[in-house]
Amino acid sequence: MSVIYEKVALIGLGLIASSMFWASKRGGLAREISGFARSEATRDTARRIGLCDVVSDSVIEAVKDADLVVLCVPVGVMGAVAQEIAPHLKPGCTVSDVGSVKGAVVEAVAPHLPKDVHFVPGHPLAGTEHSGPESGFATLFDDRWCLLVPPDGTDPDAVAKLRRFWEALGANVEEMDPEHHDLVLAVTSHTPHLIAYTMVGVADDLGRVTDSEVIKYSAAGFRDFTRIAASDPTMWRDVFLNNKQATLEILGRFTEELFALQRAIRTGDGDELFDYFTRTRAIRRGIIEAGQDTDAPDFGRVKAKH
Amino acid sequence: MSVIYEKVALIGLGLIASSMFWASKRGGLAREISGFARSEATRDTARRIGLCDVVSDSVIEAVKDADLVVLCVPVGVMGAVAQEIAPHLKPGCTVSDVGSVKGAVVEAVAPHLPKDVHFVPGHPLAGTEHSGPESGFATLFDDRWCLLVPPDGTDPDAVAKLRRFWEALGANVEEMDPEHHDLVLAVTSHTPHLIAYTMVGVADDLGRVTDSEVIKYSAAGFRDFTRIAASDPTMWRDVFLNNKQATLEILGRFTEELFALQRAIRTGDGDELFDYFTRTRAIRRGIIEAGQDTDAPDFGRVKAKH
Repeated sequence: MSVIYEKVALIGLGLIASSMFWASKRGGLAREISGFARSEATRDTARRIGLCDVVSDSVIEAVKDADLVVLCVPVGVMGAVAQEIAPHLKPGCTVSDVGSVKGAVVEAVAPHLPKDVHFVPGHPLAGTEHSGPESGFATLFDDRWCLLVPPDGTDPDAVAKLRRFWEALGANVEEMDPEHHDLVLAVTSHTPHLIAYTMVGVADDLGRVTDSEVIKYSAAGFRDFTRIAASDPTMWRDVFLNNKQATLEILGRFTEELFALQRAIRTGDGDELFDYFTRTRAIRRGIIEAGQDTDAPDFGRVKAKH
Repeated sequence: MSVIYEKVALIGLGLIASSMFWASKRGGLAREISGFARSEATRDTARRIGLCDVVSDSVIEAVKDADLVVLCVPVGVMGAVAQEIAPHLKPGCTVSDVGSVKGAVVEAVAPHLPKDVHFVPGHPLAGTEHSGPESGFATLFDDRWCLLVPPDGTDPDAVAKLRRFWEALGANVEEMDPEHHDLVLAVTSHTPHLIAYTMVGVADDLGRVTDSEVIKYSAAGFRDFTRIAASDPTMWRDVFLNNKQATLEILGRFTEELFALQRAIRTGDGDELFDYFTRTRAIRRGIIEAGQDTDAPDFGRVKAKH
């Protein structure tokens, strides 16, 4: 046991919150963890599987006396939740979140919070295509990054404590400003997700290639897109509505490049295609060297070697 | 041992050919397997690791007396190789290939082959992002699909025998015509690959988001694209040059859809985004139920559960 916060409140009990609970239990990082979810079904599930020490039927009850309150709800409702809990927060506590966009969250949440509360927005870069209270597990954050974007003037002790908490959950922590965060994530996450959703939608639409063929023959590349495109629709709707500017900018760059490659195909410019495909290989190498993915063929889906 | 062909010749010794060799050895499907690669370095590697019973320095030597000759070279050179080996093929033998496009391969190869040879083009839908003679393994084709596209009038016994061979290598076999194959693959493989290459190229280009940030924070979705975009550049150049029509058609559909979603983001149409993202989830479910991917979170990259 190395307790960092006496009481932690997790608001919203999906993949991230449930993983935070299990990882926190693993490390003994809090004496008590309360949880709240808007849906009664989610609260029932949480109680059944032992997710959280106490599951409250009221968000106000959940945040009472909490030293750390983490908003684990979709980005679009962060502001409303902050407004609801604000009068009931313990003075001196820290409020954080796990939203995938940061500029819009800071704008939505900060105005509601009392002056005697520390606001340290965060974003753990971890997840799977699964969602809901039963999808979490203790190792989700191990060796992943968690980005903190404390507004200027935030108490350094509060930031340092939250950093220790995330490190104890297994993550590496980095700080940056919200605008830069949103651009980086537009590149590494938001635009790739939109593209994957689009490709899967196109496949679904095509009359001549039946659904069953698309599914049967998906191993050739398409199935990787479907995994990404199976992520939580509410979360992703909110991401795009709230990181509009950076996503549209990266999408603009993407279509520009795509059209250049499309023209190379149309004109039969093999050299341009070859050079492009060679350049992108190096990035993969970098990701494996940085420990952010496995070098096992096909993500280790392939089991045995000869 | 259940020998299907007395002698098999593998022309080109990359991921597919080397996996065919190991899978064939596993099942004892050929009494002798000869191999040839254009590059001396590849032949040396093959000899060192015991890939093929005999590695020939001459493609003519390799195909001599072979009952099955499989062209495992990039699509762009299939025609030239067929022309070179044609006069040296054993009467009554079967010639096949493993190219990712079929219309162009049939056009390039068929005219060169003598009348007393059976031509049964094929395409195993299996692979990893790795390439070269050392990347193969015996289980690559297990439970994957292999598509055969025999031209009208091909000897049914020759087709049936090749089917038995692929089934013994571990694959499920289906027959279709080359044009349909090329459209299905444009959807399930070729366009997804082009898109992945493009996204990785965009990330690489962006000055404000440094390379190291793209790599560090890739776990949020981008790294799946980099895996696809790490595939063999020569192979993929040839795929796009040789499946031009279907790829351009699917790309057209893709950009149309992408622009619709882009407009939904710009206008803040959350319902459209939500509906789209919900629809694509069902396809993922279909793929898992069809046994074409694992349901383990993150492709099973995540090891432990709580």
